Amino acid sequence: MNATNITWHMNHVKREEREHLLGQKGITIWLTGLPSSGKSTTAFTLEHDLIKRGRLAYVLDGDNVRHGLNKNLGFSAEDREENIRRISEVALLFADAGIITITSFISPYRQDRDLARKKHGEKGLPFIEIFVDTPIEICEARDPKGLYKKARMGELKGFTGIDDPYESPLNPEFVSRTEAKSPEILSLEIIDYLRSENLLRS
Amino acid sequence: MNATNITWHMNHVKREEREHLLGQKGITIWLTGLPSSGKSTTAFTLEHDLIKRGRLAYVLDGDNVRHGLNKNLGFSAEDREENIRRISEVALLFADAGIITITSFISPYRQDRDLARKKHGEKGLPFIEIFVDTPIEICEARDPKGLYKKARMGELKGFTGIDDPYESPLNPEFVSRTEAKSPEILSLEIIDYLRSENLLRS
Repeated sequence: MNATNITWHMNHVKREEREHLLGQKGITIWLTGLPSSGKSTTAFTLEHDLIKRGRLAYVLDGDNVRHGLNKNLGFSAEDREENIRRISEVALLFADAGIITITSFISPYRQDRDLARKKHGEKGLPFIEIFVDTPIEICEARDPKGLYKKARMGELKGFTGIDDPYESPLNPEFVSRTEAKSPEILSLEIIDYLRSENLLRS
Repeated sequence: MNATNITWHMNHVKREEREHLLGQKGITIWLTGLPSSGKSTTAFTLEHDLIKRGRLAYVLDGDNVRHGLNKNLGFSAEDREENIRRISEVALLFADAGIITITSFISPYRQDRDLARKKHGEKGLPFIEIFVDTPIEICEARDPKGLYKKARMGELKGFTGIDDPYESPLNPEFVSRTEAKSPEILSLEIIDYLRSENLLRS
């Protein structure tokens, strides 16, 4: 059979074909930081700014993952690890589909984030770790859901930053200081960073 | 503060905005059928045909899900249920992102597929069930990996169609008869169906 006659397919469309169609690269932007550090606001502002620029972006967060895919997981160390493992696998699929994937989870353990990075590397997918580096005093003062207060009073156990550790990234691609800059400035700076690294267009 | 001044965001980009950007609707096309019934060939041919038409499509299958997200699952009834549950949650996320999501799994149990359909319905996402309805004699004659043979010899336990049940869809949106038509014709017929249901453009 001549190759030009083959009109059915036994394999996935190549990532490059989807990236060509979209005019962008599939990447994962992994936000990490304490509760109330400003991850969600950064993620959503970035998502809106990218869509406004015609880039296909999607935020994975507690809203759409914890209540769906990961609703059978709790907050034990083991479940937290499985939580981040599944999120990193879903991010891999999204990035493979050509999407600018933004994950917004505390993801407190360095080992879990490093594993997500490693898996992306193995598939040749860029992994941009953004440390939302807000001092705990400021996170605790914000405390929109009163969770720090509950944790301090012992009503909430295993709360990251209070009685469960948060391990800061050692070499994040980008550090976001939400107490110093507004979300819209941080979002534009992240977009500038992606552009400078040639990560926005295919 | 005036609404026009709000330049940061506290919520996800709306599905409609992404669909507008892509010029298409997020939907899930759920293929189900016996082992070797032709699901993968149908899925990949459809994916290629959609991409060729400028539609963003992505296949979720054993390749990219069983070895990643679901690698900690086996083939017990419980694990099969969790396998399909996770796949349906990931399909929901993909469809929510505006992508034409094609799942290619045996998904033998009616109850699991119906749950996937129900979840899509709750989110207002179209769910197109395609029954790859190939007679077991033909599947068994194809048997590219020799799995039917192993199952018949008792070397493989819990094999769908031999010693584990396959429950056919009762009301699938589309029936694909791979013994009667070639994959490229089936793919074009599926695209025609999607077009006729107004599911291809946003």
